[in-house]
Formats: sequence, C-alpha cells, structure tokens
Amino acid sequence: MAVASQASAAPTSDTESADQQDYRQYFTPLPSLPPIPADNSLTAEKVALGKMLFFEPRLSKSSNISCASCHNPALAWTDRLPTAVGHDGQVGERNSPTVLNSGFLGSQFWDGREPDLEGQALGPIQNSIEMAHDLDGALARLSAVDGYSDHFQTAFPADEAPLSSGNLADAIASFERTLNTPNAPLDRYLLGDEAALTDQQKAGMKDFVDIGCISCHRGANFSDSLFHPIQVPGSDDPGRFAVTNEESDRQAFRTASLRNVALTYPYFHDGSAETLEDVVPIMAEQMLKRELDDATVERLVSFLHALTGEQPVVTVPALP
Amino acid sequence: MAVASQASAAPTSDTESADQQDYRQYFTPLPSLPPIPADNSLTAEKVALGKMLFFEPRLSKSSNISCASCHNPALAWTDRLPTAVGHDGQVGERNSPTVLNSGFLGSQFWDGREPDLEGQALGPIQNSIEMAHDLDGALARLSAVDGYSDHFQTAFPADEAPLSSGNLADAIASFERTLNTPNAPLDRYLLGDEAALTDQQKAGMKDFVDIGCISCHRGANFSDSLFHPIQVPGSDDPGRFAVTNEESDRQAFRTASLRNVALTYPYFHDGSAETLEDVVPIMAEQMLKRELDDATVERLVSFLHALTGEQPVVTVPALP
Repeated sequence: MAVASQASAAPTSDTESADQQDYRQYFTPLPSLPPIPADNSLTAEKVALGKMLFFEPRLSKSSNISCASCHNPALAWTDRLPTAVGHDGQVGERNSPTVLNSGFLGSQFWDGREPDLEGQALGPIQNSIEMAHDLDGALARLSAVDGYSDHFQTAFPADEAPLSSGNLADAIASFERTLNTPNAPLDRYLLGDEAALTDQQKAGMKDFVDIGCISCHRGANFSDSLFHPIQVPGSDDPGRFAVTNEESDRQAFRTASLRNVALTYPYFHDGSAETLEDVVPIMAEQMLKRELDDATVERLVSFLHALTGEQPVVTVPALP
Repeated sequence: MAVASQASAAPTSDTESADQQDYRQYFTPLPSLPPIPADNSLTAEKVALGKMLFFEPRLSKSSNISCASCHNPALAWTDRLPTAVGHDGQVGERNSPTVLNSGFLGSQFWDGREPDLEGQALGPIQNSIEMAHDLDGALARLSAVDGYSDHFQTAFPADEAPLSSGNLADAIASFERTLNTPNAPLDRYLLGDEAALTDQQKAGMKDFVDIGCISCHRGANFSDSLFHPIQVPGSDDPGRFAVTNEESDRQAFRTASLRNVALTYPYFHDGSAETLEDVVPIMAEQMLKRELDDATVERLVSFLHALTGEQPVVTVPALP
C-alpha cells in the first residue's frame, strides 16, 4: 500500500526513473513467437494448412462450426459470450478462451487437461456439445474435398499418409502459434518508450506488483501456468479436480493470461463477469484477501488496458 | 448441334477467329462494381462499417451467428451446405446464395422477394430460423458496444440518429457491393486474351449459346434476373408463387448467376445437387427439353469453371 500511495503522488523525474527501474524488472516483453516444440517445427506450409483447418466448418458434424466460430478472429479470437455455443445451439459450461498468445501457456483448457496446443486442437472437434464429430468422420470429410490431400502432403512431405489426425493437430497448433500480440503499450514501455504508458497506467503497474497480482499473473504471458482454487461467485465447477481427482485442485483453474484482457470479455471460466471493473475487486478479494478502493481498481484496469497488443491481421483463407 | 460439332473439330485459325467473334458477342465481361443505387452512394466509411456488421454475431439473438456464418468468406461467401443452418441449429429450406456479385442481381433471395441488397440485409436478422432476432434488439446490442455509435456517425454524417436499421442495411449492402469477382478466364478471353480459355472451354462456350443456356443465364452476371418455373427433382417448394400468388410463378425461382459456380456447390434452391456434372443435364432436360451426351456435359462444365473470377481478399475486421 505504501508504494501504491507513493505512485499516485507526483514523483520527480529522478525518483520516477528509479521507480521504473524497480518495477520493470517484474515484467517481460512478449516475444513475437512462443516456444516451438521439437516434434512440431514451425513451417510456412503447416501454418498455411492450419489456417485453412482453423476456418474449416466441415470438421464439425454439422459442417457449420469451425474453430473460428468460437475463437472468432473478429472478436479477439474468442466469442464474447459467457459460455460457448456449439452443435445444435447447445450451450457449454465454460468461456471460450482466446487463441491469442496461447502458445505461451503451459497447458491448455481452463483445467489444463491438455499439455499443448496439439492436444487441445482435437478436443472441440470431438466434444458432443461443440463440434460433435469424430476424428475419422472429420478426416473423411477432408479427404473428400479436392485439394486437402495435396495441402497435407505439402505440409508433411515425409509422411506416407499425411492426412491424419496427428497432422491435423500439428497444423492447427502451428497456425495458432503465429497468433501473438507483441508491442502492447507495456511492452513498448519495457523496451524504453517512456510515453507508451499513461501516468495512471504506470501507477497501476506498481499496484499490480505491490498488491500481489503478479504472484500468479507473471511472465511474458501474465500467467504462471499453475492451477489455483478460486470461488467465482455462483460457480460450482470442479475445475481441475475433474482432471486430477486431487482435493487440492477442487475449483482450481489455470491462471488466465492477461494479455489483451480488455478485448476478451466476459471473464472467468463461466463468463459471469462482464467488465474489468467487475473482475478486479473479485480477484483481489478471492485470491489476495484484499479489498480495493475505487481509485486502485481504476488504476489496475487502466494498466490492464496497456496489455492490448498488436492484433494479427488475418485474411480469410479460400478453402478448397 | 451443328455448331457444337464444328467447335470440337480443329478449325483453321481464320475460322476460329471468325467463330470467336460470333460467340463473344453473346457475353459481357463483369464490371468491377455493380450499379450503385442513387439513394445509397458507395463510400469507404459505409463499406468499412458494413464489413464490421457483416461479421458481427451480436446482430443475432444468440450473439453467435453473423452474416458471415452462412455467407462464409472462406467458402466463396456461402456455406457449402444443402440448406442453411441457423438459430439453435435449425435447418432452413433453401440453399444460402453467395454474396459474390450479388449487387448485379435484379432482385434478392431465391424467390426475389426483396428488390435490392438493402432489403435483403435485414431479412436473415429477423428470420426465426436464421438469426432469430428483432431489429430493435439488434440495434440495442450495437448501441451497447463502445464504438459503433461513432462508426455509424462517420458513415452517415448527415443523420441525427445514425444508428438505425436503415443505415444498418445501407452499410451492409455497401460492403456487399464491393464483393465482386472480375477477371475470370472468360472475362480475360472476352477482353482479348486468346489463351485464357482452353479449347474445351471455348467449345463449351459455343455449346452454352447453341443449346440455349444463354437465354436465361445472360448478361455480365449470367442471370436474366427473371423467374422461371423449374421442377427440381424431389422439391415441392412453391418458389415465387409464395410471393406473388400468381399460378405462373409456382416453383419459379430467379435465374441463378453462374459466376463462380464451380465454388458455390451444392446447387439448386434446395442444395440437392452436389456437382456441376449432376446439375447440367438436369437443367438441360428441365429447361430446354434437351438430353445432353456426356461429352457436351463435360464441355459445358469445363466452360463453367472459366467463370471463376478473382476472389476478394478480405481481412477479418476487429470488431469494437
């Protein structure tokens, strides 16, 4: 609290410079690419194929739902719905996470049940309330479309039977690893552009450290990739407990990234909070046992807006 | 038939030149823009707003279906389904027409029940099995999103209350009028590039005239914009009769454009034919009382592939 009050006073430029040095050390600019797995090298051919597959509704049973339906590029690669709408209009139980910067996460899905994007990619295709298909059916659909065999062969030239679910996952994951948002105001500030943050955002950055948000929301992607129990008001979702059966994982979810959080509303695993002004006090109370005053909430929200990076510009692929 | 046989023989370059002159006169290259209505001038601001609205799922009751869901830019601005899938997975009765070159049509919808794109744009939003919303609800959604009021004001600067259903329609229609596909192989051929069509396509072009396809599929957009009764096998859709109550309009539909027809499968108002090879003989039999041999069908299909133009490259808009 002492530091937070200090930050809202007008410091001399000397003390400001010293303070900034202190606080910058807690943050890491977002690299332009996440780590690339050794067994799925990133190639232009895989990315091009993965982009097609990401937009491909014929992967779904109805031929009407693609990855891009819930991870909508027009809506910061999510759907701005509390929880996802899938096959036959069925409504799911969890909020669609953005794909942006997802390659930086240490696991996938709210409960971390898949270790990587390759594992994640095949989940929604087979989920009965999402795309509601089976992998054989999805692959058969692709095989029936002139062109896909060639695209898979080009992307996976060493494979004898390249049109496989493993390669489907590898291609989609490769495309997703290109969807990153570097050069947010915070990144530019960290790299030396003093004017990239407003004074309020600089003060919010200090609050973010001092209050303790950073203990979980840390690293380049503002997530420790660990699981923490949280009582989101009104939710009885068992969270990671359903994956591990460990009592300590009950109602635990992987720390959400805060990159582009101003765009990825609504919030929480159940999408029950609409605005950052709603979320910040709940998080402080639930996770840090802190009651924040309105001015602190405003500063933190202002800082969170500084995490909106350059959005990838994507042309819609012409599907075969 | 005489001319068609002549075309499949190898002519001298003199007679070929004379033939081409004859047949080129029946065709018109596609202009880069359709007619612009006097009361909806085409401006960059309207097009930009219309593009956002076209991709805007919050126009639908579920906030999950946009114009782009059924008129999918990745699938030649249609959905490649027999008939459209809408609100809560409901399946409609007619095939989603492509938006490409739709500004060249003399009326909209299969039954022509709207005279123009402005009228069309508001239909699916309100249709209970499509986007299932009401216009007031859709406009209220937009009003609640920071940014839309400004975009409407910019696009319609003379209006006191620009966020209206009329302007919504005008903006979407303006965007759609930019989605045209000039410079198809046929267009390039008509403009002097002899090599733009294969010999088979040139022969198919002659068949297209001689057999009589061109009597309805004529003009730059290959549609007379008139309504013709057709017995699509298995269909009892009343077609335009439901609009006019005229017996002569029973099972009549507006002549479909053939531009990009190789991409806009499946075919007919009910999407009941999967390939051009399926459609061409049915059309010849139903509309022209002609039974075509396989070689003629092949030539015609080959010609239809020469109507695939340059596809608009669209970046996904970042919605407010």
